[in-house]
Amino acid sequence: MGIGKTAFGAFADRDLRSLAVEAGEKCLRNAHAAPAQVESFYLGNFAGPAFVGQNHLAPYVSTALGIYGVPSTRIEAACASSGSAFFHAWTEVAAGVYDLVLVVGVEKMTSQPTARVSQILAEAGDCSGEMKVGSTFASLFAMIARRHMYEFGTKKEHLSMVAVKNHAAGALNPDAHMRKVITLEQAMKAKPIAEPLNLYDCSLVSDGAAAVLLAPLERAREFTAKPVRVLGIAQCSDYVALDQKADIVTFPAVRRAGEQAYRMAGVTPREIEFAELHDCFTIAEIVATEDLGFVEKGQGGPYAFAGCTALRGERPVNTSGGLKSKGHPVGATGVAQICDLVLQIRGEAGERQIERHSLALAENLGGSGATCVVTILGAA
Amino acid sequence: MGIGKTAFGAFADRDLRSLAVEAGEKCLRNAHAAPAQVESFYLGNFAGPAFVGQNHLAPYVSTALGIYGVPSTRIEAACASSGSAFFHAWTEVAAGVYDLVLVVGVEKMTSQPTARVSQILAEAGDCSGEMKVGSTFASLFAMIARRHMYEFGTKKEHLSMVAVKNHAAGALNPDAHMRKVITLEQAMKAKPIAEPLNLYDCSLVSDGAAAVLLAPLERAREFTAKPVRVLGIAQCSDYVALDQKADIVTFPAVRRAGEQAYRMAGVTPREIEFAELHDCFTIAEIVATEDLGFVEKGQGGPYAFAGCTALRGERPVNTSGGLKSKGHPVGATGVAQICDLVLQIRGEAGERQIERHSLALAENLGGSGATCVVTILGAA
Repeated sequence: MGIGKTAFGAFADRDLRSLAVEAGEKCLRNAHAAPAQVESFYLGNFAGPAFVGQNHLAPYVSTALGIYGVPSTRIEAACASSGSAFFHAWTEVAAGVYDLVLVVGVEKMTSQPTARVSQILAEAGDCSGEMKVGSTFASLFAMIARRHMYEFGTKKEHLSMVAVKNHAAGALNPDAHMRKVITLEQAMKAKPIAEPLNLYDCSLVSDGAAAVLLAPLERAREFTAKPVRVLGIAQCSDYVALDQKADIVTFPAVRRAGEQAYRMAGVTPREIEFAELHDCFTIAEIVATEDLGFVEKGQGGPYAFAGCTALRGERPVNTSGGLKSKGHPVGATGVAQICDLVLQIRGEAGERQIERHSLALAENLGGSGATCVVTILGAA
Repeated sequence: MGIGKTAFGAFADRDLRSLAVEAGEKCLRNAHAAPAQVESFYLGNFAGPAFVGQNHLAPYVSTALGIYGVPSTRIEAACASSGSAFFHAWTEVAAGVYDLVLVVGVEKMTSQPTARVSQILAEAGDCSGEMKVGSTFASLFAMIARRHMYEFGTKKEHLSMVAVKNHAAGALNPDAHMRKVITLEQAMKAKPIAEPLNLYDCSLVSDGAAAVLLAPLERAREFTAKPVRVLGIAQCSDYVALDQKADIVTFPAVRRAGEQAYRMAGVTPREIEFAELHDCFTIAEIVATEDLGFVEKGQGGPYAFAGCTALRGERPVNTSGGLKSKGHPVGATGVAQICDLVLQIRGEAGERQIERHSLALAENLGGSGATCVVTILGAA
């Protein structure tokens, strides 16, 4: 498995294609592979047409990487676009259809004003229902947070601690968008966005790209001295509209994808040593630690507040800084999570390297839970 | 293989989801299958966010069809979106990953004014180059037509005959958008769009959806008394920008996809009895008959003019009426081509049923040739 990433941030002088190409080229170099060896290409991208006015993005990117002729396919699944692209690429390699498949995830968001960014993001929700009446993803996740507080006694400081923790990790990540340590007091007192969520409960609007090259296990050592193996993976789906869900403090697509991935990997949730979880909002990370079985339902808040998911905690979550600090270029996020897990598994995570780093999980969420991809990785 | 289609047309009272659901439900009924049996769902859609303001479309549609939990994935590949979705669905069934996979293609275009439709379509071209300087797909295909005329002596009446032929077939198709027979004189004298292309050289802006259910061959008879088999299939890619291509009167992605599909099927081009070719413009159908080897390069114009590709000709092309008369709801087109071939192979094409109908080809093109999917079907 080869990996490549751009820095995440707000890059006024970079366009979507140059970001995607940078990540793709770094990935091919990392794997000592040539473009002509790639047998199928996937692009994960959420809203290139709306953000930068370009559609038909897969061949637009792949030909710029020097990849011709082969299938070149864009997958859109909201914030899980490149997680889904990775899932389908893995499926084709695992089934023996192709040997070498390159997956690039990319989003260029910062060229649009904030109000337009919110509108484009809202199109990942149900625009004939919840979004039509004025919801945003911040307000939907605020409702989830409120309900979680009501049912389980989750507190504002639990949410804020997730932000503090992810900023602390992201400050050590040279590719992170916002390398800034924050205190619990700062996190608690930030500008309200959709109460109980404030500015520090929300992930960043970023530009960036990430890439992964997949190969069958038996050929992995042609491309890397430190192969990483996909032990389990699943993509699951559910209602787009939050109001169609029976219970908003749990995501059935996450639970189901987790169960399938654990079964495929033959591991239990408690065995997972570290994870990248989809912290689009702080409450989303807390809910994910529950839905994925790291803790009992309702215990995610105290678990985070106690430091268990911190960089030096018992089960580090988002050692990259997560969407909160590393940044969230929507279509790049799923593949970026994979890259960050691979760095840790290989022992190449620099200042943020953790000690137990052989079994990891990535959870990439689309919308308010309509798409989820869970991947379990281990050293091969 | 089950199939289902909506009528194609301009439906002011129908939204994207209701069209997709109608096609999906008809398809499941056609195959005597229940939503709960579907193991993976693909949605082919080009520009739902721009046309109707809704993204994250795969779970938005699949949950409305009663399909939960399983992978639900949108593929975007310009006008080849659902051809590509079909290709990936076929790959997963053929590789034994899933048994039952449902593919729906949909586009809802007519709710936007014409100028905005042109702008949205142009995003399938290179918006950092050719489209930025004012090109449209009509003007790009006009350049292809001019060059084809210059190199091979193709005449305006050759182009117009393609329109006459496709309108004649489409008039017999109850689901066609424009059921109107036209004369060669009408076709020649229509309003110019981008010379030498006039109004009748251009396909229609339509709303519509189509669906196909794929199953492994050994289970096909559970779902239909008349199974149809995918004998060969390939998806290929090339430059998005026309000006990056070495030669504009041939599409390398079409040639390559054709060669791969023929090899897989073990048939020669001359053995293909009938076809649905991507006539986004009349010149595109002529070029496709050449690139796919039905005739020598340069002979597509006279071949069409002589009636060889007419409904009662030696090798009927677009017995459905094609994009020209049946209509071209972009994201639905690739799967609709498959549905129309299946109708003929099963002998269920009504008034437009042809006599030799056992070996057929579909060619679905994205942009000015950056994506192409070729599928060869036969009675199982």
